[in-house]
Amino acid sequence: MRYSFLNDYSEGAHPSILNALVESNMIQQTPYGDDVFSVDAKQRIRKHLGASFSGSVHFVASGTLANLVSISSVLKPYEAVITVQSGHIVSHEAGAIEATGHKLITVPGVEGKLTPVNLKEAIAKNSFFPHMAKPGLIYISNVTEMGTVYTHAELSALSAIAKEHGLLLFMDGARMGMALASNKNDMTLADIAELCDVFWIGGTKVGALLGEAIVVSNPDLVEGFDICIKQKGGLLAKGRLLGVQFQTLFNDELLYVDIARHANAMAAQLAQGIKAAGYDLQDEPDANQVFAILPNTLIETLKQSFEFFVWQPVDDKKSLVRLVTSWATEESQVIRFVEQLSS
Amino acid sequence: MRYSFLNDYSEGAHPSILNALVESNMIQQTPYGDDVFSVDAKQRIRKHLGASFSGSVHFVASGTLANLVSISSVLKPYEAVITVQSGHIVSHEAGAIEATGHKLITVPGVEGKLTPVNLKEAIAKNSFFPHMAKPGLIYISNVTEMGTVYTHAELSALSAIAKEHGLLLFMDGARMGMALASNKNDMTLADIAELCDVFWIGGTKVGALLGEAIVVSNPDLVEGFDICIKQKGGLLAKGRLLGVQFQTLFNDELLYVDIARHANAMAAQLAQGIKAAGYDLQDEPDANQVFAILPNTLIETLKQSFEFFVWQPVDDKKSLVRLVTSWATEESQVIRFVEQLSS
Amino acid sequence: MRYSFLNDYSEGAHPSILNALVESNMIQQTPYGDDVFSVDAKQRIRKHLGASFSGSVHFVASGTLANLVSISSVLKPYEAVITVQSGHIVSHEAGAIEATGHKLITVPGVEGKLTPVNLKEAIAKNSFFPHMAKPGLIYISNVTEMGTVYTHAELSALSAIAKEHGLLLFMDGARMGMALASNKNDMTLADIAELCDVFWIGGTKVGALLGEAIVVSNPDLVEGFDICIKQKGGLLAKGRLLGVQFQTLFNDELLYVDIARHANAMAAQLAQGIKAAGYDLQDEPDANQVFAILPNTLIETLKQSFEFFVWQPVDDKKSLVRLVTSWATEESQVIRFVEQLSS
Amino acid sequence: MRYSFLNDYSEGAHPSILNALVESNMIQQTPYGDDVFSVDAKQRIRKHLGASFSGSVHFVASGTLANLVSISSVLKPYEAVITVQSGHIVSHEAGAIEATGHKLITVPGVEGKLTPVNLKEAIAKNSFFPHMAKPGLIYISNVTEMGTVYTHAELSALSAIAKEHGLLLFMDGARMGMALASNKNDMTLADIAELCDVFWIGGTKVGALLGEAIVVSNPDLVEGFDICIKQKGGLLAKGRLLGVQFQTLFNDELLYVDIARHANAMAAQLAQGIKAAGYDLQDEPDANQVFAILPNTLIETLKQSFEFFVWQPVDDKKSLVRLVTSWATEESQVIRFVEQLSS
Repeated sequence: MRYSFLNDYSEGAHPSILNALVESNMIQQTPYGDDVFSVDAKQRIRKHLGASFSGSVHFVASGTLANLVSISSVLKPYEAVITVQSGHIVSHEAGAIEATGHKLITVPGVEGKLTPVNLKEAIAKNSFFPHMAKPGLIYISNVTEMGTVYTHAELSALSAIAKEHGLLLFMDGARMGMALASNKNDMTLADIAELCDVFWIGGTKVGALLGEAIVVSNPDLVEGFDICIKQKGGLLAKGRLLGVQFQTLFNDELLYVDIARHANAMAAQLAQGIKAAGYDLQDEPDANQVFAILPNTLIETLKQSFEFFVWQPVDDKKSLVRLVTSWATEESQVIRFVEQLSS
Repeated sequence: MRYSFLNDYSEGAHPSILNALVESNMIQQTPYGDDVFSVDAKQRIRKHLGASFSGSVHFVASGTLANLVSISSVLKPYEAVITVQSGHIVSHEAGAIEATGHKLITVPGVEGKLTPVNLKEAIAKNSFFPHMAKPGLIYISNVTEMGTVYTHAELSALSAIAKEHGLLLFMDGARMGMALASNKNDMTLADIAELCDVFWIGGTKVGALLGEAIVVSNPDLVEGFDICIKQKGGLLAKGRLLGVQFQTLFNDELLYVDIARHANAMAAQLAQGIKAAGYDLQDEPDANQVFAILPNTLIETLKQSFEFFVWQPVDDKKSLVRLVTSWATEESQVIRFVEQLSS
Repeated sequence: MRYSFLNDYSEGAHPSILNALVESNMIQQTPYGDDVFSVDAKQRIRKHLGASFSGSVHFVASGTLANLVSISSVLKPYEAVITVQSGHIVSHEAGAIEATGHKLITVPGVEGKLTPVNLKEAIAKNSFFPHMAKPGLIYISNVTEMGTVYTHAELSALSAIAKEHGLLLFMDGARMGMALASNKNDMTLADIAELCDVFWIGGTKVGALLGEAIVVSNPDLVEGFDICIKQKGGLLAKGRLLGVQFQTLFNDELLYVDIARHANAMAAQLAQGIKAAGYDLQDEPDANQVFAILPNTLIETLKQSFEFFVWQPVDDKKSLVRLVTSWATEESQVIRFVEQLSS
Repeated sequence: MRYSFLNDYSEGAHPSILNALVESNMIQQTPYGDDVFSVDAKQRIRKHLGASFSGSVHFVASGTLANLVSISSVLKPYEAVITVQSGHIVSHEAGAIEATGHKLITVPGVEGKLTPVNLKEAIAKNSFFPHMAKPGLIYISNVTEMGTVYTHAELSALSAIAKEHGLLLFMDGARMGMALASNKNDMTLADIAELCDVFWIGGTKVGALLGEAIVVSNPDLVEGFDICIKQKGGLLAKGRLLGVQFQTLFNDELLYVDIARHANAMAAQLAQGIKAAGYDLQDEPDANQVFAILPNTLIETLKQSFEFFVWQPVDDKKSLVRLVTSWATEESQVIRFVEQLSS
């Protein structure tokens, strides 16, 4: 059995979550998210969103649902989405956004991030109306697809441009935990709620069985958001399943960030070991993804004991590989991986 | 604490399912439904679909997703859906089908069922092309919204009309378990697979935390179905969550039907008690929903100890109420409810 | 050659329109509706919309485009349309509205009209959120599909209910000319602009080759409307074609209403002749559609000289027929038709 | 009054078309494209489509409608469109294709054309299913947005790749006339019908008031195409307006190509004059668009007498300009333009 560094969703749920599900199982509840667990979980999340927060919190079953519901709910039919080319919605969600009727305008990213310069250029280029769809929303993810994390200054710059041009700012937080736990991070959820109109706090990649918490922080966008969720199939009859999980993740000790901290630490340890063994990283990992350049022969050997993604060839003899860690990553396996690098 | 007969999703999951989730939790798996649990669960379901079955089985997170993915995946853009007025997709899914671009053509139902006469009339009336959307699919549910169950003869008649007019036949099986376990039922899943082009086997209302198994029995409709699921946000990263549950429901003892049998038995016991107490049922319950006519004063009294749905007034003094039972319904509560009828 | 009373679009354009097209043909113009003809035509229409009008006027190529662009442009994705069952969008536009993602909620009409009672009932019934699509817009047509015309009092009543419930009021004016020219009418375009959020002034059925003028009278709905038109394919490169036509229809003598007055007069003459010959009308015609009950044997005879629509059987021996008149209807043919009734 | 070389739709219709409209105006006809003119026009077009043609011909009102109806009619919901970045549907149709639910996959063009290498690369890159939308159709235009024309060899190469990968090949023929009349062209409409699954023959830019003829040459795609046209608002009540125009364009002398030949000749004359005056062309013009590099000071002078599009700066002192000619372009104005180059 090979140990997997393929992704951060190879196991089930964090044991605390399973325990909570078992314990709450037989308590009868109102369906569709009106259960006491969901109500409490939302309250716990709201505590992190700042005193002035006047939006809403919603749970949905998957990240693609979180993206497509959020974007289609807040855009007008003639509006388009600006995103970096590497954005998850561009090529990993089967055209989910377009299927709701909205165009994606792609711009080059820098280490997976949208930059103010590229954003402004995209806005300027897409202004020949009524012949062009009107940019209406900026999609970013944090952690990005390249494993990088936005700083407060970076996000503020994008938010300022968004406001200046009447665009909404939306953050895909599939790995929000790892972003918050990152050494690079200097933002709280309250900061993000202030700067973004809508964002989501991913559960699936941070220890939950499934589920993402969408935060609509712009109060003008709250109306009808719940109907959109239902319309797109995102409302679970047993909403308690999502409530119990986020209750657990947002407990007093903030398990959500603890989990992510472990994932990030394991990635740092992998990165450190790779460098110590004399190999190059593409970049220092901001979160729980390590991009390393390894010889193809070594990759072949490693593949006998580990699963990981070979991202792309670097040259004839070397390739870029991606290693992902999670709440469940065993330190012993990290050590074993590093040992095999030098053997 | 009032005991709830409101619906069949007031509790979490059947304990066997929770156990299976706990036991399998730490085993690393391939994501997106390619895990060993999902593969095995699909295999177990296929065993019930007949030797000649050459379609596919897919898991999605919710019933609305099952309906909207199935319908939008198999229809051409100019095609419409024929459904009875009481169909779940008509007024309980927030316009989910129309949101995928397809018109609903509603016809009057008879005890919640679509009849051959009404179906033929709808087909005939909707044939003024190109001015009308073309009927392309017939939507039925089994158990119906009125709690009734289709017989083999009834389904065969609809299927024959569908084939004659080039329409697809689709069955929403949110309560498929209760249909299979019904005294009225004379069909196997293989029969349904033979007669319907697409149908689904509901998990949420039959003991699962969430999840429905869509069966595409018409092999011409298989291509791209999985991409549609992904595009609509229905593909879970931890597909194992659905796989483990359906593995458990479709175990050697066919827990899926056992669960439903208990629900139906509890409904029958409620119905029997109501009649014995001198009150009328709207109909004999085919499955796990009891529609009873009770005096308003009695309803007020019962409401102090039980939750249930007051469906509609019958006259000034009486109302129709709906009582729903499930895998979790305690016989002691049924007995207590019946006792209160006579007290 | 049989003379046709089938509809009001059997001929080309009113001669004045063709003349104007010929005269303006070689003058170079800016495309996409920014030509001097379109600008002037919009100005001429605005003169009829009241001093306080602060909305916009747009031209599109067809009635279905006018309906689908208007409705999809102003609704949020989770919103539905309330319409009478006989509404043109229900069964004569191939599911055009649903294809933009919006549900139609149908209510029984009374002589083709939406009544306050039925409207309120539909609103009340469709209020179980988030499980139901939210009513967002009321669709009516004037003249209705049944040939009737709304009074100021009737429209005011619907508008008041719309405002009370936060719904938009939309009027399909495919035969707006005939409504304005009707003896039943007591409204100006300014009245309609005050009471409706969006409506359109039909050209196709009132002497134009094609084209409808959409009036967005609610200023909150103006933004992006032109992009929606472009996105749905409704913006003609040679927008002048629509501009020249509406310039002509809205000339100083208001040809638009003159044309309709002739159509209505021909219908009245037909109706009068039918009654004089001893046959019944379904109703007195408000505009240019006559619904008459004729013996089937007579219908057979008339069919040899005339084309018209046999709407539905009344009994074994009689049927309801529909006769439509237009700007082009020749009085001599009306006389000939009436003569044949008595021969 | 400045003379316009801005586009090929600055005037109304070719005089022959207006004459035909005037002459046919009062003849009563069946609506919605079943008039004798439309039937005959389709027959005339079919004569050019080859003996083995077994598809269908349809008229719609605009180019955007032709594109969006064709693409949405033939694709499955999970399928995407491959197009060059400069494709008209990418940035000049307000997101019309995405609004029907389909993703655009853009690839770099070479002089506006899709090349086999780039096409294959796009297909290869977009094959990670079910996470990616599946390429289903290749969109090209002929003449391209850059004014170039495809050769038979080039189109055959694309068609072969399309067939190999199960993709449909679709050609936007807004300027099909100019393509057929081009010196570069070595294809007939029958060749195009053989190689493309769907294509359209543009009227708007080739002398019509409006209207495009869509040819569905793949017989598997014919069913329901007319309903899609109606659903998208593309079916004119007075279909005769399109029928009469295409009857005239496809008369015995093939006015359609005559018109385009004049446009191309005027462009060639402009190009020749520009070169003779000592200025550079970006490329030799294949059809009716001339891209020339002119000094900014000269451009300022020319702007006093002519309208044309300044495409983009070349350097501090020079810009690329686009000049478009049409059926209506007066040779005297071409001569005057060329004279001003040297004055």
